[in-house]
Amino acid sequence: MGTWYDGRMCTSDNSLLIRKSVREMTPYVPGEQPRLPNLIKLNTNENPYPPSPAVGAAIAALNPETLRLYPDPLCAGLRDKLAALFSCTPGHILVANGSDEALRLCTDAFVENDGTIGYFDPSYSLYPVLAAMRGVPSRPVNLWPEQTWKMPEGYSCPLFFMTNPNAPTGMLFEKKHIKAFCETFPGVVVIDEAYADFARENALDLALTLPNVLVCRTLSKSYSLAGLRLGFLVGSPTLISALYKLKDSYNIDRIALALAEAAISDQAAMRANVQRIIATRERVERALRGRGWDVCPSETNFLWCRPPAGRTAAAVFKSLREQAIIVRYWDAPRLDAYLRITVGTDPQMDALLAALA
Amino acid sequence: MGTWYDGRMCTSDNSLLIRKSVREMTPYVPGEQPRLPNLIKLNTNENPYPPSPAVGAAIAALNPETLRLYPDPLCAGLRDKLAALFSCTPGHILVANGSDEALRLCTDAFVENDGTIGYFDPSYSLYPVLAAMRGVPSRPVNLWPEQTWKMPEGYSCPLFFMTNPNAPTGMLFEKKHIKAFCETFPGVVVIDEAYADFARENALDLALTLPNVLVCRTLSKSYSLAGLRLGFLVGSPTLISALYKLKDSYNIDRIALALAEAAISDQAAMRANVQRIIATRERVERALRGRGWDVCPSETNFLWCRPPAGRTAAAVFKSLREQAIIVRYWDAPRLDAYLRITVGTDPQMDALLAALA
Repeated sequence: MGTWYDGRMCTSDNSLLIRKSVREMTPYVPGEQPRLPNLIKLNTNENPYPPSPAVGAAIAALNPETLRLYPDPLCAGLRDKLAALFSCTPGHILVANGSDEALRLCTDAFVENDGTIGYFDPSYSLYPVLAAMRGVPSRPVNLWPEQTWKMPEGYSCPLFFMTNPNAPTGMLFEKKHIKAFCETFPGVVVIDEAYADFARENALDLALTLPNVLVCRTLSKSYSLAGLRLGFLVGSPTLISALYKLKDSYNIDRIALALAEAAISDQAAMRANVQRIIATRERVERALRGRGWDVCPSETNFLWCRPPAGRTAAAVFKSLREQAIIVRYWDAPRLDAYLRITVGTDPQMDALLAALA
Repeated sequence: MGTWYDGRMCTSDNSLLIRKSVREMTPYVPGEQPRLPNLIKLNTNENPYPPSPAVGAAIAALNPETLRLYPDPLCAGLRDKLAALFSCTPGHILVANGSDEALRLCTDAFVENDGTIGYFDPSYSLYPVLAAMRGVPSRPVNLWPEQTWKMPEGYSCPLFFMTNPNAPTGMLFEKKHIKAFCETFPGVVVIDEAYADFARENALDLALTLPNVLVCRTLSKSYSLAGLRLGFLVGSPTLISALYKLKDSYNIDRIALALAEAAISDQAAMRANVQRIIATRERVERALRGRGWDVCPSETNFLWCRPPAGRTAAAVFKSLREQAIIVRYWDAPRLDAYLRITVGTDPQMDALLAALA
């Protein structure tokens, strides 16, 4: 084969062609997607209810012939609809192939090669992977044991991810604290509001008033469209236009655009599903507490909870699995005492409560 | 607002939050997508014929309720189909949100921060933008004036993009030259075969035998699915698994997966459209040559051609536009003598020939 890059001889090992930080990184592991019949799937915070009927109508209206043409690279129609919804301009909005793409673009746009990426720990387990993908160090800020929020003295980084409500805890940070933090923080703060539609309040107004704040949203949870891959960022047009330079030219396909527009246009359907989920969440939260579980106050579509003394989370996870109920469990320090349980339909949650008994 | 990152004071200018190389980069500009009635659109190499009827059937079979669930992050079903088509294993294949995502992932996987990215000039105008996005220098290799291929003495880089058949020229590089080049090249060679289905031969076997070669394909051109965003890479499982570490967790949505599987399953429909386009291409090529145009021998679905003496490409472009026919013209050194004309339907090309007369 001759010589290889950096003068290394290649015999059969071509792994040296791979960037060092990529060779060494551990990739993100999504929650499993088993395909078992009669499975009750409460492990990836999917919405148990179908999307708006407007989405089905948009599918029925699709013309396959139009797929031969490229989609609108700027997603003008969808951005107009989102701008109307949030009382801002289309220039305040970036549409992404799932919020994962939006978060990754932020690491490319706002972090120099010698920069760092900050986030709370625990929060969305993708953030350290995004830092590794970008090839820069992570600067996590511990929330435990007190579950409260205190930045270390002199803490600073060019990009800070804040999940609010937080995952996997489900707790909402108070907006006055977020505002005070963002107003003095020297870098970009991305408030990842994947679960905001299930919460009392959100920070969208901060993204529209503070020059260093972006809010990230997704259609995956409240709009029941995890299968569609549609996320978006809201914030200063200066920051948004930097992200537009970096995205893949045609990052959203024609069908996703049409279906997302349909979903956004039917706020009532989304709100109705959210209300049903909140009612179920509150009922299950009370039931678990009544049985001695420690349950974090949730403002999301999941519960972060610890079994009563005498039962480990690992054992409960295993037992539920044997009963065809899958929840999320992390075999990791500081997380392994808890389970994260997605709020499903009432019959699903009744089955869960029965299985736990 | 207090102080900002690097101690810079922020008044109203938050552009300093943006990475320097991003502030300075010029983004890729896709061919325009005007929405005019009766427009003949020959500017972005879209297929003039609809996708396979199997795609329409797959749309009709979609169940909107399944969209509440995440898609398969590993695209197992589609990779199985592609592996069967190319006589390889699913581990040889990465599925991407358009080939643009595949190419970008290569820059993240195979180029260190102090690396470079190589490509021919002229070729796909995205490559220098990908290098700028990655924040590394470009190392273009000029093909002109002789249109042939000679690497500079001692040329080397960790990642080289080779479009074959090339764009915008439409010419095919000989496989024996490609093979000899790849066998001694020290870095990864990505052969971007977006137009390979329109050509006499392709280099897929090199991707399956040489440890440093990846072949990139797309459903955008020959499968008439530019609106769907589906590309893929074929090559060594070692390199492919590095790319899987870096992609967004759920980069392909459920609908795109289902429709792509349908399209791949109907090779006959794709081949029939390709044959029609090739027949039209050859007819228009002869007609233009008969009128004194200089036309590159095309192995794609477009023609790279120069008007006869006395007419500039710029003037012809403008005149066609006034007649509601859009072709691609670059007002750039070394390109501005030529037009790139997508091969449309026979009636569209007759209208083009009439408009040129």
